[in-house]
Amino acid sequence: MGVLVVGTVTLDTIETPNKRVEDVLGGSGTYAAVAASFFVNPVRLIGVVGADFPQAYTDFLQTRGVDLEGITRVENGKTFRWGGKYADDFNVRDTLFTELNVIEDFHPVLPAAYKDIPYLFLANDPPELQLSIIEQVKKTKLVVSDTMDFWINEERDALQKTIERVDILILNDSEAKLLTGETNLMKAARTILRYGPKRVIIKKGEHGAISITESSYFSAPAYPMTQVTDPTGAGDSFAGGLMGYLASVGDLSEGSIRKAMMYGTVVASFNIEDFSINRQKSVQFQDIKARYNELQDTVRF
Amino acid sequence: MGVLVVGTVTLDTIETPNKRVEDVLGGSGTYAAVAASFFVNPVRLIGVVGADFPQAYTDFLQTRGVDLEGITRVENGKTFRWGGKYADDFNVRDTLFTELNVIEDFHPVLPAAYKDIPYLFLANDPPELQLSIIEQVKKTKLVVSDTMDFWINEERDALQKTIERVDILILNDSEAKLLTGETNLMKAARTILRYGPKRVIIKKGEHGAISITESSYFSAPAYPMTQVTDPTGAGDSFAGGLMGYLASVGDLSEGSIRKAMMYGTVVASFNIEDFSINRQKSVQFQDIKARYNELQDTVRF
Repeated sequence: MGVLVVGTVTLDTIETPNKRVEDVLGGSGTYAAVAASFFVNPVRLIGVVGADFPQAYTDFLQTRGVDLEGITRVENGKTFRWGGKYADDFNVRDTLFTELNVIEDFHPVLPAAYKDIPYLFLANDPPELQLSIIEQVKKTKLVVSDTMDFWINEERDALQKTIERVDILILNDSEAKLLTGETNLMKAARTILRYGPKRVIIKKGEHGAISITESSYFSAPAYPMTQVTDPTGAGDSFAGGLMGYLASVGDLSEGSIRKAMMYGTVVASFNIEDFSINRQKSVQFQDIKARYNELQDTVRF
Repeated sequence: MGVLVVGTVTLDTIETPNKRVEDVLGGSGTYAAVAASFFVNPVRLIGVVGADFPQAYTDFLQTRGVDLEGITRVENGKTFRWGGKYADDFNVRDTLFTELNVIEDFHPVLPAAYKDIPYLFLANDPPELQLSIIEQVKKTKLVVSDTMDFWINEERDALQKTIERVDILILNDSEAKLLTGETNLMKAARTILRYGPKRVIIKKGEHGAISITESSYFSAPAYPMTQVTDPTGAGDSFAGGLMGYLASVGDLSEGSIRKAMMYGTVVASFNIEDFSINRQKSVQFQDIKARYNELQDTVRF
């Protein structure tokens, strides 16, 4: 079963207390697609880059089994650039700059072969763009979307229309509170379920994640990390790993979704061990399986 | 097997966004002893009150099986009073006032029969007082202590001497970081293990708790709460439930400690549903067991 990821492909500049890197491969679509590629092949990615996008990055995506048919290259444009800076404990991130560039006028038209892909992940993107994709797909079995505080604040109406149409909404705890005005996370989750999604998954960073439906509650532990190098892309890696696993098993039971969340957690745990997608280059499926088994032990009682 | 709890017995004034209560029964010793009383009987409690301590509160403790031989009543003194105020999301608490009163000159001498009690819980108290108890006991099988930011800041040397002597240190995440100067929780935990304890349990409020030894890691989920009335005493209820369960099974294996943390989590979840120990008055052991079973399901994958 295939996965279709729609998200950004960016050149990131990241500052951490220990190091600064410039124009590294990033973006919600990149992280999610690379994460999904541990479980399914090929992964289809819809995104846009400029003429400045390095060939080495394109080559890397191809080696991961990411199908490039969906990546638009704007020859007279520049790639979306983002800069972020982390404080000492990695829990606070300041955006240094955001240059939308080619993404501003991006109105993707799905290749015909992409319309029948059963697993669709809408990574962080403008809500109108997410909605236009939902309106183009034909045979999706599962539509999952992420969002962020920026769209909640700036594009609330459009975002609401997108949320109504997705099966699972993934967002972080502060975003869930912002979206609903609730200070209690359980109440926030239940409010989101009333907006339309059948399930809401709330990411809590180092505290793991929770999944809530009308009739179920799952508390997913985080993988215990002693060394974080760069948390950028953790949430997208989580979602991409989750989608990849679900597509690989072709099943949407509560049990499969819980397992998918844990595989997503593991892929994210590797991702934050290095900048960009660097750590993922050396991760093998057996490494993922080993951490998955460790996590099973961490919650056994 | 018996449990000896050493902690404060106070009259609390609590303000929440919804209600204000005055001079209600509180204190680290009270919450911990009441929590332990669900599992063992009697619970021995060492504490001090003044002449103003209501008979109704003494009677209540007695109905819970709390042995009052260890409670000193200072006839010319006033009970420790504490006032706290919670903000909207219950995650921020401001101390309104602290009147130490009778606790300032409290130097407890253990009744002879108390010196052989195998399970000792030192709830939040001045570190010197905690240490003086450790030096009086003879046959303890397990010494567990809690602390708080105030002692870390004000009595660091004395606190360090206490920590060296305990088997398990329980503290919350911000305190673990404050105590060690580490911003990463896993690193903070490992630093604390080097101070002396064989295990550190870090409470994370709505995110659950974690337990770390040299060779084990356990991630305890929180019980999902939609309605919090008053979080005061949650940490002490957690620790008291943990101690009570351990004493009831008389076993200190990793498996038993994990179960004990989950029973503590459940007792704490009931505690925060009402002010003071009010909710505990109607909780039955079968209610505790039901939430325990629910929690087992929330982490199954």
